Amino acid sequence: MKKIAVLGYGVVGSGVVELFYRNQKKIEINTGERLEIGYILDLREFPGDPYADKVVHDIQVILDDQEVGYVAECMGGTNPAFDFCRCCLEAGKSVATSNKQLVAEKGDILLQTAKENHVNFFFEASVGGAIPIIRPLHTCLAANDISAVAGILNGTTNFILQKMFDENMRFAPALELAQKLGYAERDPSADIDGGDACRKICILASLVFGKHVYPDQIYTKGIRDITLEDVQLAQRFGGAVKLIGIVKRLEDGRVLSSVMPMVVMQDSLLSHVNGVFNAVMVWGDGVDKTMFYGRGAGKLPTASAVLGDIIDEVKQKDTVLSQSWESAEEDTSFLATIDDFKAPRCYRTSPCGKGIFAKIATEIGVELIGAAENGCMISECNQKIAEAFKRCLAQEGAEILSRIPVMID
Amino acid sequence: MKKIAVLGYGVVGSGVVELFYRNQKKIEINTGERLEIGYILDLREFPGDPYADKVVHDIQVILDDQEVGYVAECMGGTNPAFDFCRCCLEAGKSVATSNKQLVAEKGDILLQTAKENHVNFFFEASVGGAIPIIRPLHTCLAANDISAVAGILNGTTNFILQKMFDENMRFAPALELAQKLGYAERDPSADIDGGDACRKICILASLVFGKHVYPDQIYTKGIRDITLEDVQLAQRFGGAVKLIGIVKRLEDGRVLSSVMPMVVMQDSLLSHVNGVFNAVMVWGDGVDKTMFYGRGAGKLPTASAVLGDIIDEVKQKDTVLSQSWESAEEDTSFLATIDDFKAPRCYRTSPCGKGIFAKIATEIGVELIGAAENGCMISECNQKIAEAFKRCLAQEGAEILSRIPVMID
Repeated sequence: MKKIAVLGYGVVGSGVVELFYRNQKKIEINTGERLEIGYILDLREFPGDPYADKVVHDIQVILDDQEVGYVAECMGGTNPAFDFCRCCLEAGKSVATSNKQLVAEKGDILLQTAKENHVNFFFEASVGGAIPIIRPLHTCLAANDISAVAGILNGTTNFILQKMFDENMRFAPALELAQKLGYAERDPSADIDGGDACRKICILASLVFGKHVYPDQIYTKGIRDITLEDVQLAQRFGGAVKLIGIVKRLEDGRVLSSVMPMVVMQDSLLSHVNGVFNAVMVWGDGVDKTMFYGRGAGKLPTASAVLGDIIDEVKQKDTVLSQSWESAEEDTSFLATIDDFKAPRCYRTSPCGKGIFAKIATEIGVELIGAAENGCMISECNQKIAEAFKRCLAQEGAEILSRIPVMID
Repeated sequence: MKKIAVLGYGVVGSGVVELFYRNQKKIEINTGERLEIGYILDLREFPGDPYADKVVHDIQVILDDQEVGYVAECMGGTNPAFDFCRCCLEAGKSVATSNKQLVAEKGDILLQTAKENHVNFFFEASVGGAIPIIRPLHTCLAANDISAVAGILNGTTNFILQKMFDENMRFAPALELAQKLGYAERDPSADIDGGDACRKICILASLVFGKHVYPDQIYTKGIRDITLEDVQLAQRFGGAVKLIGIVKRLEDGRVLSSVMPMVVMQDSLLSHVNGVFNAVMVWGDGVDKTMFYGRGAGKLPTASAVLGDIIDEVKQKDTVLSQSWESAEEDTSFLATIDDFKAPRCYRTSPCGKGIFAKIATEIGVELIGAAENGCMISECNQKIAEAFKRCLAQEGAEILSRIPVMID
């Protein structure tokens, strides 16, 4: 019999314990191994909890127990999660984590530690909650040269933007509703300013392109400034505003990552991903494009991903399958900056004649995709041309109220 | 160095060779193993082909070469593919196949043979082409009790139905267009009568519920009788007609599988899956629901899935990870029949007053979800009530022109 230790008995940790005992028999048949939750590490006591007798307060108890082969890290944050994970890996225990901050900031080090100790460090739950994306990326899609990954990686902002789109709500009441329903924290900044999505795109970028991309290297813009008028203008042009995390390889081989609100046209399946759901689209030279969709957060969905990792670790036994990537703190030469960003754009302006947009588009040499009395959409251009278009608009007396890039699927 | 043998040098087989050589370096880094295409088995010669020197006509050459560790079966059909696969597995070679007919009819036997010989039999490419679905189902989602799987499993019919929906084309010209574009065969019956989707749902059903479900055990209805008027009526009620393969566990534990046209409401992401793309939705007690989307066919997409399997086989080495399921030819007691099917329904009738629908719905005890002058949609009911509703309509003088079940997401 092998034991699993669960670090952190909060929402995700308790979900792992609940889902494990619900489907224990099925999991044991699948892995061919008798399994048990051996310990639950938490600072708190849980009197009355059915698993209260498993709660310990000292990681050393877990490290010392040779029967513990697998660790589910569900604490969040990097301290002490990083030290605990490293110690577990060094003690020969495979680790599965749901902790995106940990992987985004320290994934390279923990993957290296896992490799050196012939154990696995898996993190399926750290991106897109329940959605199988990490494992498919480095197994099913392994024969592809992957050129880009983009997705809706934060459910809270997606819920807010959908309320604005479907029900003409303004940002503030939509956020308030999200808070009331428990989708947004009291301090919602990690979600609405893009930090949460940023960590997830870090992980995807590192995995796909093989070098660690750190959160502070990614251009990140949240949805705080998105107005109902922006959403309505996008809708008029056949698109929906979504918070998109994207990483792509440019023609010169450098990698460009960003998190920002983008207009997603309705012929893209991503534009129909609604509510708190997440989705990740992947482009590769074999598959063309493929998309993965599901709940991006929540107790049992996240637990499902953590336990999926542990089941895989049990089945692999002595095979180290977790993908590693290089540390890259010093070397940033492989990263492009937002100045290299190209996309169609949606401009919202003070009311002015549609003719102005057509005139400037011709002058600047871009195509006018759509025009309304208070804005327009132009074809793909770089930052320089986008700025020039803005300047020309100002010269014609139009006030520029917003500029949102458009995602091409 | 390990050799890969490719059986069948048609569309998929040549795609496997092309994609392998395009990304050979990346694949070798990923697997940590030097790899080579050792043989291509085909009855034909390919003079002038860059890999003509690898072509052999006798499976024995491949069986005898100890360096061949991996076999990509891309022949199609069951004869001689079944014998060839069995011999390869017995010779200690892992097999990856794109052949849905083979897996749907003989998967149980080949999985058993693989197990006995400590090798893997993988078939990611047999369902949904490029879409990672088989591996996520038995790895990432392994902690779930999966209750249902449903999907758009045939690109040809999806293309036709979308043309009817978007462009008001009738069935015949839409099919003709699909043939012209190479999406449909000259004899399109395997696609439009549902046989292709049926094989794929067999494979998903067997994998998820652990007993082999054979094609002739699945209620299968194609899209040949779907008219433009059916599509337009569904559209009026906020849905799209899609060919849906579905397998679900009923409350009594039996498994119900079917392939038939269904109205998918637009709040389901499945209704927005367009063109020749496929998508598979999975419901589980941990994940709630999750969806996988991508190209369901095509040279490189299918090759991507076959090579993904082979990469996994190389990485696994001596671990047998392919999921097996029981043979069940004699035992059909776990299967429910179409008589157990429950769903909302969409009826199209000769023009009659909307009041008739409301009146009958009240009499029968179902809810009227939508009504038009030539049809209505009623809430979930079993086959018996659906028949009763139809009889009452006839008694009121309405001619019933079609009845299509509605999919609830």
